[in-house]
Amino acid sequence: MNNFEFKNPTKIIFGKDTIEKVNEEIPQDAKVLMLYGGGSIKKNGIYEQVKNALTGVEVVEFGGIPANPEYETLLKALQVIKDENITYLLAVGGGSVIDGTKFLSSAALYEGDTPWDILTEKIKTEKGMPFGTVLTLPATGSEMNSGAVITRKETKEKLGMGGPGLFPQFSILDPQVIVSIPQRQLANGLTDAFTHVLEQYMTYPVGGLLQDRFAESILQTLIEVAPKVVKDPSNYEAASNFMWSCTMALNGLIKQGVPGDWAIHMMGHELTALFGIDHARTLAVVTPSHYKYNFEAKKEKLAQYAERVWNVTEGNQEDKAYAAIEKTEAFFHQLGIDTKLSDYTSDYKGTAEEISKRFTDRGWNGIGERQALTPQDAEKIVKMTY
Amino acid sequence: MNNFEFKNPTKIIFGKDTIEKVNEEIPQDAKVLMLYGGGSIKKNGIYEQVKNALTGVEVVEFGGIPANPEYETLLKALQVIKDENITYLLAVGGGSVIDGTKFLSSAALYEGDTPWDILTEKIKTEKGMPFGTVLTLPATGSEMNSGAVITRKETKEKLGMGGPGLFPQFSILDPQVIVSIPQRQLANGLTDAFTHVLEQYMTYPVGGLLQDRFAESILQTLIEVAPKVVKDPSNYEAASNFMWSCTMALNGLIKQGVPGDWAIHMMGHELTALFGIDHARTLAVVTPSHYKYNFEAKKEKLAQYAERVWNVTEGNQEDKAYAAIEKTEAFFHQLGIDTKLSDYTSDYKGTAEEISKRFTDRGWNGIGERQALTPQDAEKIVKMTY
Repeated sequence: MNNFEFKNPTKIIFGKDTIEKVNEEIPQDAKVLMLYGGGSIKKNGIYEQVKNALTGVEVVEFGGIPANPEYETLLKALQVIKDENITYLLAVGGGSVIDGTKFLSSAALYEGDTPWDILTEKIKTEKGMPFGTVLTLPATGSEMNSGAVITRKETKEKLGMGGPGLFPQFSILDPQVIVSIPQRQLANGLTDAFTHVLEQYMTYPVGGLLQDRFAESILQTLIEVAPKVVKDPSNYEAASNFMWSCTMALNGLIKQGVPGDWAIHMMGHELTALFGIDHARTLAVVTPSHYKYNFEAKKEKLAQYAERVWNVTEGNQEDKAYAAIEKTEAFFHQLGIDTKLSDYTSDYKGTAEEISKRFTDRGWNGIGERQALTPQDAEKIVKMTY
Repeated sequence: MNNFEFKNPTKIIFGKDTIEKVNEEIPQDAKVLMLYGGGSIKKNGIYEQVKNALTGVEVVEFGGIPANPEYETLLKALQVIKDENITYLLAVGGGSVIDGTKFLSSAALYEGDTPWDILTEKIKTEKGMPFGTVLTLPATGSEMNSGAVITRKETKEKLGMGGPGLFPQFSILDPQVIVSIPQRQLANGLTDAFTHVLEQYMTYPVGGLLQDRFAESILQTLIEVAPKVVKDPSNYEAASNFMWSCTMALNGLIKQGVPGDWAIHMMGHELTALFGIDHARTLAVVTPSHYKYNFEAKKEKLAQYAERVWNVTEGNQEDKAYAAIEKTEAFFHQLGIDTKLSDYTSDYKGTAEEISKRFTDRGWNGIGERQALTPQDAEKIVKMTY
């Protein structure tokens, strides 16, 4: 097991009818900017629940944060924060709204030239404007971590940011919100969380026995509840385990003391930036090819995953490892998620080269668990997804 | 799954040669009281490591905190805190030293008549004097939770306390400390952590699928590493997984959204208070009898535990549930831990009645997962341990 440091101060308020607790968590003298997305919270009643709960504090609203939170839109919200002397942010939404709120938390206190520097110069945010979240879409885990990914349309870029100042002060997780989530988003959320675990688990063994088992626990639980959640989102047992699994998949716990890969995300982000494909779907596209390309490096963990998560008992280590890739792809298909780039666009020619060039331009000469995958490797992997 | 609220702000610094980081975590203007136990840290070099690391801050020492931290001793430390205007506490030790430090953290800021009230009146500590820990003995999980158990010899009492103000600000976990721990303490630590998980897992099912799997993950890991840790404490892979499992067993994560039992601890505490038996050993004494006595209520989870943790495949649900109890007892025996009260004392006559009377006197009319076990039930369970 590798050395690690771990601290996660976010307060989780989990369960039925917990949205009404939002008011207890925000200081009464705060001036709050409530941020949300395209307005689905107005249809499903969550907007009303939050507004009714927020008594005694002054609230300004900013709606319209798109999926893959967009820099230009966020700059408008930043102006509102400054014009209105906002002191507290409240994200009501999924990963995109929460990620956007994290950017604003950082940018609101940033003193440099332009807040885009936070992303390009990889500035670690030690202190941000305080914020909380009401989660409406389980998937990204952003409700209990300090990272965010921001998109800039103008330059077709999608970059990460973070820092210890960007943990939500609180996050409210009411699994009942799942009832109103479209099937497509449920499938995306399941795929996203599943891949988050894989990125932290499907590497090379370092004797993190407990971490491996925790990762396998989340995978097994997602596999168990996925068909139930999709079939009947009002199944509270399935919904609550789905929601808690998504949070635990990326709240920092399972990555402690073990290597992480994240090459799937790095390639996937480019597919979203280039084609606008849903984040989760890009991960499902890259995962099988990435594991096939890096088979030798990952076969030991792939075989362990096959045995413990998919109950594969037949064959030798390599057979099991291959079976694991097939089972994973079949799991995505079962959720209605396609796993080839050509399923999403006919315009895929040149994509691999473009991504390779972008990585080279950014100086990303070694990505993945051993920082050993070159832009040329990425090119070959992306080609395998055609 | 039940509703829950979860927040754990302790910073964990885990790994080889991490003790030297202690100085980075304590404010340079602090006046520190360094607390430790019977002096083993002076023999094994940990005292030197901590003292050498602590540069720039003023440090006063208080040694001699005994196992089952004793109220009268702690009052002396409290006097030192007041006389020396201490502002920060540093526990260097195992669960007893850390628990004692938590009591002091609370008592130092307590404004009532006598600090014993904190225990008898179940006062929830919202704010304590800040403290950190350097863990020398994996077992109790006290390094990453906000609870403590304090003993008062005078009255043969052992009572719990806690509150959100009693999380360590940081805890340093260097698995290399395990090398110098006596076999007896290693066996105790493994048993203690194992039983902590059981208390939060072996209840009745409420659909906490992920929590169940996390609990099973810790149990499986402890079972896997236990013989290795005992045989060769310098096996770093085994030691590090042992240490992290102990922390995860009682840092609040696996109890979220599921019922807890803790009746084993309540009966076990009395055996320590009455006979001075090591805490962990009292748990091993009570566990099999408690599960046999409450077999009907627990058989579903016992069978699940048998299947998933002990790989029991034969028999019906009841057979598996019985097998689980036998496997658990055998695990304790394998560690050299006796599981009958009569193995520890020939003076056990009347113990069950005495414990039953104590519970009645304290108004503990219903303990356990459904608050349904009466003092009479406890009497019968303790009799089964003779």
